[in-house]
Amino acid sequence: MEFTSIQQLLAAYQSGEITPADYLYSQWKKAQNDQHNCWISLISEAQLDGYLKALRNHKPENKPLYGVPFAIKDNIDLAGLQTTAACKEFAYTPGQSAFVVQALIEAGAVPLGKTNLDQFATGLNGTRSPFGACKNSIDPAYVSGGSSSGSAVSVALGQVMFSLGTDTAGSGRIPAAFNRLVGMKASIGRISCRGVVPACRTLDCVTLFAHSVEDIEYLLPIAGQYDAGDAYARDFSESDADIVYLSDAVRIGVPKTDNLEFFGNADFQRRFELSKEKLAANGAELVEMDIQDFLDAATLLYQGPWVAERYAAIEGFFDEHETQCEPTIQAILGSASKFSAVDAFNAHYQLKALKKRCDAKLKTVDAVIVPTSGTIYTIEEMLDDPIQKNTDFGYYTNFMNLLDYAAIAIPADNETEQMPFGITLFSDQGSESKLLDLAKAYIANEAVSVGESIDETMVIAVCGAHMEGLPLNHQLKDRHASFIDKRRSASSYRFYALAGEGPKRPGMVRVNEAGVSIEMELWEVPTSRVGDFLAGIPSPLGLGKVELDDGTWVTGFICQASAIEGAKDISSYGSWRLYLTNNS
Amino acid sequence: MEFTSIQQLLAAYQSGEITPADYLYSQWKKAQNDQHNCWISLISEAQLDGYLKALRNHKPENKPLYGVPFAIKDNIDLAGLQTTAACKEFAYTPGQSAFVVQALIEAGAVPLGKTNLDQFATGLNGTRSPFGACKNSIDPAYVSGGSSSGSAVSVALGQVMFSLGTDTAGSGRIPAAFNRLVGMKASIGRISCRGVVPACRTLDCVTLFAHSVEDIEYLLPIAGQYDAGDAYARDFSESDADIVYLSDAVRIGVPKTDNLEFFGNADFQRRFELSKEKLAANGAELVEMDIQDFLDAATLLYQGPWVAERYAAIEGFFDEHETQCEPTIQAILGSASKFSAVDAFNAHYQLKALKKRCDAKLKTVDAVIVPTSGTIYTIEEMLDDPIQKNTDFGYYTNFMNLLDYAAIAIPADNETEQMPFGITLFSDQGSESKLLDLAKAYIANEAVSVGESIDETMVIAVCGAHMEGLPLNHQLKDRHASFIDKRRSASSYRFYALAGEGPKRPGMVRVNEAGVSIEMELWEVPTSRVGDFLAGIPSPLGLGKVELDDGTWVTGFICQASAIEGAKDISSYGSWRLYLTNNS
Repeated sequence: MEFTSIQQLLAAYQSGEITPADYLYSQWKKAQNDQHNCWISLISEAQLDGYLKALRNHKPENKPLYGVPFAIKDNIDLAGLQTTAACKEFAYTPGQSAFVVQALIEAGAVPLGKTNLDQFATGLNGTRSPFGACKNSIDPAYVSGGSSSGSAVSVALGQVMFSLGTDTAGSGRIPAAFNRLVGMKASIGRISCRGVVPACRTLDCVTLFAHSVEDIEYLLPIAGQYDAGDAYARDFSESDADIVYLSDAVRIGVPKTDNLEFFGNADFQRRFELSKEKLAANGAELVEMDIQDFLDAATLLYQGPWVAERYAAIEGFFDEHETQCEPTIQAILGSASKFSAVDAFNAHYQLKALKKRCDAKLKTVDAVIVPTSGTIYTIEEMLDDPIQKNTDFGYYTNFMNLLDYAAIAIPADNETEQMPFGITLFSDQGSESKLLDLAKAYIANEAVSVGESIDETMVIAVCGAHMEGLPLNHQLKDRHASFIDKRRSASSYRFYALAGEGPKRPGMVRVNEAGVSIEMELWEVPTSRVGDFLAGIPSPLGLGKVELDDGTWVTGFICQASAIEGAKDISSYGSWRLYLTNNS
Repeated sequence: MEFTSIQQLLAAYQSGEITPADYLYSQWKKAQNDQHNCWISLISEAQLDGYLKALRNHKPENKPLYGVPFAIKDNIDLAGLQTTAACKEFAYTPGQSAFVVQALIEAGAVPLGKTNLDQFATGLNGTRSPFGACKNSIDPAYVSGGSSSGSAVSVALGQVMFSLGTDTAGSGRIPAAFNRLVGMKASIGRISCRGVVPACRTLDCVTLFAHSVEDIEYLLPIAGQYDAGDAYARDFSESDADIVYLSDAVRIGVPKTDNLEFFGNADFQRRFELSKEKLAANGAELVEMDIQDFLDAATLLYQGPWVAERYAAIEGFFDEHETQCEPTIQAILGSASKFSAVDAFNAHYQLKALKKRCDAKLKTVDAVIVPTSGTIYTIEEMLDDPIQKNTDFGYYTNFMNLLDYAAIAIPADNETEQMPFGITLFSDQGSESKLLDLAKAYIANEAVSVGESIDETMVIAVCGAHMEGLPLNHQLKDRHASFIDKRRSASSYRFYALAGEGPKRPGMVRVNEAGVSIEMELWEVPTSRVGDFLAGIPSPLGLGKVELDDGTWVTGFICQASAIEGAKDISSYGSWRLYLTNNS
């Protein structure tokens, strides 16, 4: 049985269409029969039984990922299976799972095993593994992308519902693009890296692969629980609350033509143009941006002393076992010793100066769109020129971790096209919610939405010049208020056109007899903005409690009775609009 | 004429007691006659005339530092004078001033010259200079502290009103302590470092020395203008707005006894105990804290690869002119080449892990107090053992830049004692406002204040159960409202004791005749909190505009006239308190 979303699977469990035991066993079998070099190790049948048994002690409604199978890149610890980082000689069996793995298991997810990767997560193509080149899920002649190759392909082939990758230079995005998946590289520190073999500890991110943005959105709060025990973890709980856009039209930065590089792939070039057109057609304002500073930052990653971080991560092992490493990895890590501490600091200064300029550019838009990769190669092409062709894949990805940005890679084609093309939306650290929002709108081909989510709001009932389309309505909209409903008051008010300067205004005065019902509008106003709204309300008006026709009370406009003198009783209209129409 | 505060000087200018020309000329003469080795260079008489001429084109009220003389540490550029960093062979004459210097000059301040320092800002004692050891302002046999030695001593001796130093390891704090001044090392990036000879670019801060916390508070917004052109600058404008304390009692972390080190100075040890007692007597809650992790971070600075940053800062010069450097500096910088990029990253990982633990501790208190220095030495003692005795001074200071904390060093003795003892209050980056607040209270020996400063507030007039001491007053105080004044309303209201459940409440109803004046209290309420205050107000009450007895209108409680039915007219009391007293 094929499921392509977490919710679909959970619904099937709930309806009894399939049991977790049956489904997970069949998925595990499917993984065992994998022909794409996805896996380095799978859990045993006994281990699978253990996970199933543990699930039976819990109610599905308490476990948001109850019985959802997932894959773990083999540089992330899962207790009871070896961690190899795609190097047999490096392997160790961890006593406990990585923090993120544990969080997912506690949420009910079931890990089926450990997936293939470019050795020590050093690569973007998926061929640099003694466990065999991982093959593309759509056409096995092509590379899968890497380094999180098996994690992406196992999801794409329907063996697991989602997976964990890691990303230092693009390893969580390139494989998403090449296998028509969504891949999220959240901000550094968003998902704990405790229990992960480091590549560059200052830059490493654990990433998520899934079929849809909705699945990623569902997974991120679970996988991204703050880990106080990880020195590089950051608490982004506050930035999750609000999605704030710069203006009414979403502003998307698009690279200048001469920033773009497709390595001769005219098809990807054309499809990137189509992606931009789709964004514009959906209402986004495209802002041309010179991203040369971003691209310059990217070159620091492999040409600069960050290579020393990769060496620092496995220093003890590498010094003793250099020749047991994959030849390309040997060459890369072997160059680390040439960099001095002075080089490291000088590169840091260069990066900091570039980041300052890049941040300033980023502030002018809501997000930037780039191709995830400018091209794709066959495994044969890759093996012929393994360093340069790998470098090509990193053209648009290498700068994002260095510059501390968050990114989401999404499919940007339809499935009739053969090899998939993907785009990446990126923005500042902490922008995950906004990127998910934009990605959903893009994929659903919906208007790119603009909103501002506010923690606390309150309802205010208005009956006069603050109603939609009337002169003071802007006082509400300026405070990000939104219209909820048209209602009428209880029949307990008299209604007056007040005398005085400025825009014409009515007043509702509560009476104990001969009251009428008045047309009102309910607006939802951020509570924090009500104070200055109130400050601008002149006598005799104020804000108090107004009774609606169903007997409920809401905050709304009230009027001091002393103002009746000199005012015109317009109660018979029962509506400020109606009065205006008849008295203009 | 002696002035010891900026406001005093500005007032003397304004009253005509002295002219800027006379005062600045006399200060410049005083600086010329300096016997403490404070200065490396002074502006010429022609340059002084130039500054005076420029001032004459402006009104004093437009220049917050009109005619205020200051000193600049000679690793910070002032256009037209050499920057030497206390190394004659390194000297260059900058074409433009450092960003911070320019900002101060534009605000009307007048730089009298460039001050002596430990060469390349490498030192905490003030003796490491070919321009002579800078002498302590209180007893010239003692060290002045460094590296910002001349900047501190020139202020202490009354030659200038304030000065700029720099601080990488404590250089802006130790000289403050040793010369009975206030020294602020704001957060990294708070004050621009553009136009400053770097020591460790990732850690360097420009600092302020002055006689009082009030002067520092006045200077910081001017000196700390955000510099978009400095890669390490950070915009702290938002964090300036609020001073938020953890609870009603200010919680101050104090190191455990076995964390403390006074290097045999029993006098300083005793005086630190007195400082703690003073804080406790002023109402602070002292929280014992193990600061070993902080002290461990400190050791990374000189024993780790950050020394390579000092070398990176002057690499080209040092390679050619090593022997022209001061011998101690030669030894320190000469060791830089032994560190590799791998060492640099490994040290970074160690620091990050320590910072995680230190941050967690810091979150449990509002600030931490430490001695600024555990001891002080004579110049002779220092020169006998120049490395170790310098290291002693850094015991409490070295960790703060590495851990990205803000700090203020303040005098903690009275002037009858001979050699001054100082304490430092530190907290997280961005905490400058809170540290200033605490430092002011400490020095003034006032109750350590707890408050929340809010950008915007509004006045709300209350007349009933919300008044001070009455049952609903907490609704105001819970929202950090503060009492402003007792007032009376205009004689345009009738006053009613309302019927209904809950706490007894009155209502003021505006009338056109036979009105009386009602006793009211004005409360200042954060505007952002008025919305939820309003939400809790039941019918028939509300918030609108109330007229006071001087004819002004303020936001305040109003009441719907319909509620008069069944209510008791208590207008004759003219006061809710009076009514309660007579009807309880």
